[in-house]
Amino acid sequence: MKSVFQIRDSIIIDDVLSSVEYGTLALCVDNTPYSIPLNFVHDKESIYFHGSKKGKKMQMIYENTNASFSVVQSYSIIQSYFSSNDLLACPATHFFKSIIINGQIEIIDSYEEKVKAMSLLMEKLQKEGGYKPFTDKAYEKMLNAVAVYKLNKKNLTAKFKFGQNLSDERFDMVIEHLKKRNTKIDNATIEMMLNQRIL
Amino acid sequence: MKSVFQIRDSIIIDDVLSSVEYGTLALCVDNTPYSIPLNFVHDKESIYFHGSKKGKKMQMIYENTNASFSVVQSYSIIQSYFSSNDLLACPATHFFKSIIINGQIEIIDSYEEKVKAMSLLMEKLQKEGGYKPFTDKAYEKMLNAVAVYKLNKKNLTAKFKFGQNLSDERFDMVIEHLKKRNTKIDNATIEMMLNQRIL
Repeated sequence: MKSVFQIRDSIIIDDVLSSVEYGTLALCVDNTPYSIPLNFVHDKESIYFHGSKKGKKMQMIYENTNASFSVVQSYSIIQSYFSSNDLLACPATHFFKSIIINGQIEIIDSYEEKVKAMSLLMEKLQKEGGYKPFTDKAYEKMLNAVAVYKLNKKNLTAKFKFGQNLSDERFDMVIEHLKKRNTKIDNATIEMMLNQRIL
Repeated sequence: MKSVFQIRDSIIIDDVLSSVEYGTLALCVDNTPYSIPLNFVHDKESIYFHGSKKGKKMQMIYENTNASFSVVQSYSIIQSYFSSNDLLACPATHFFKSIIINGQIEIIDSYEEKVKAMSLLMEKLQKEGGYKPFTDKAYEKMLNAVAVYKLNKKNLTAKFKFGQNLSDERFDMVIEHLKKRNTKIDNATIEMMLNQRIL
């Protein structure tokens, strides 16, 4: 069994994209890549971003719309002695969920689509509300000034790593060590490990 | 004053790269970028990675050594009403530290340099030790089988965003809201805000 396994369930993928606050967009021009962390929100087809109309990012998008976006939900660092007593460093690892989406960037010109994208972003990051909807005239100047763009998904790969390739003995040993360390992220890791074991 | 400010102090930059467990490497081939989350460790000149000798990443590196790596230390999401009473969504933001490093990837052939890179990585992620040093013969097969590569820094940009452009009144309002929400990350954000205000 592989140490990293691929997820195809769209509800699980959706949950990661909804939980994570930022991802990293890779662009390139003249075969020189550029790695840019960004807040984002997604819907079924696209990942939405916003930012300044000027600057390196927009210049690159105008030159080349090919893009790749990745997102990580980080879980526990697994110390080498969590799963082995042989005193080798090799079993040390990091449990995670990751998603990589490749596709084409499209700059959004439509005012209505800008309203939609910014509304989705606020619904994601400020669930409790407490602001006027973006259809309000008060946003007109801001919405005209801001650049909103989307990555249209061509392909998506989701990979999870939660020790599902370990023998039962080593798997249980990791669980015991995580229980002992007992941080918030360790408890979330234990839950994911046990869930994945069932799948 | 800009909402994001640039950091040039190498001790502060070093601290971010030492604290963060993973970053995102952007590679590209045929003007098609690829965004890959990876664990890493750094020294003065380079960022070190390791992984399989086979696969898309290595293929891309063989074709084009241009690369860009970014790292984020994520702080609080700042709700729109944390700094304003006008009920507009616009002040909503995310405080962070981010670093982008551009340069050339080099695959490490030297056994000694592989030992150095893997030792640095373990010192970063498993500070308490508990494993034999990589100079031990027991690692020989593993070290010969693993790909170790480094990004040689050509340029580095570090940007921090902690509300330092806000008026005193709005700045204090954010602090009060963070104190009230009082999560672990909110408390770390308050500390950073107050530190940055002094700089």
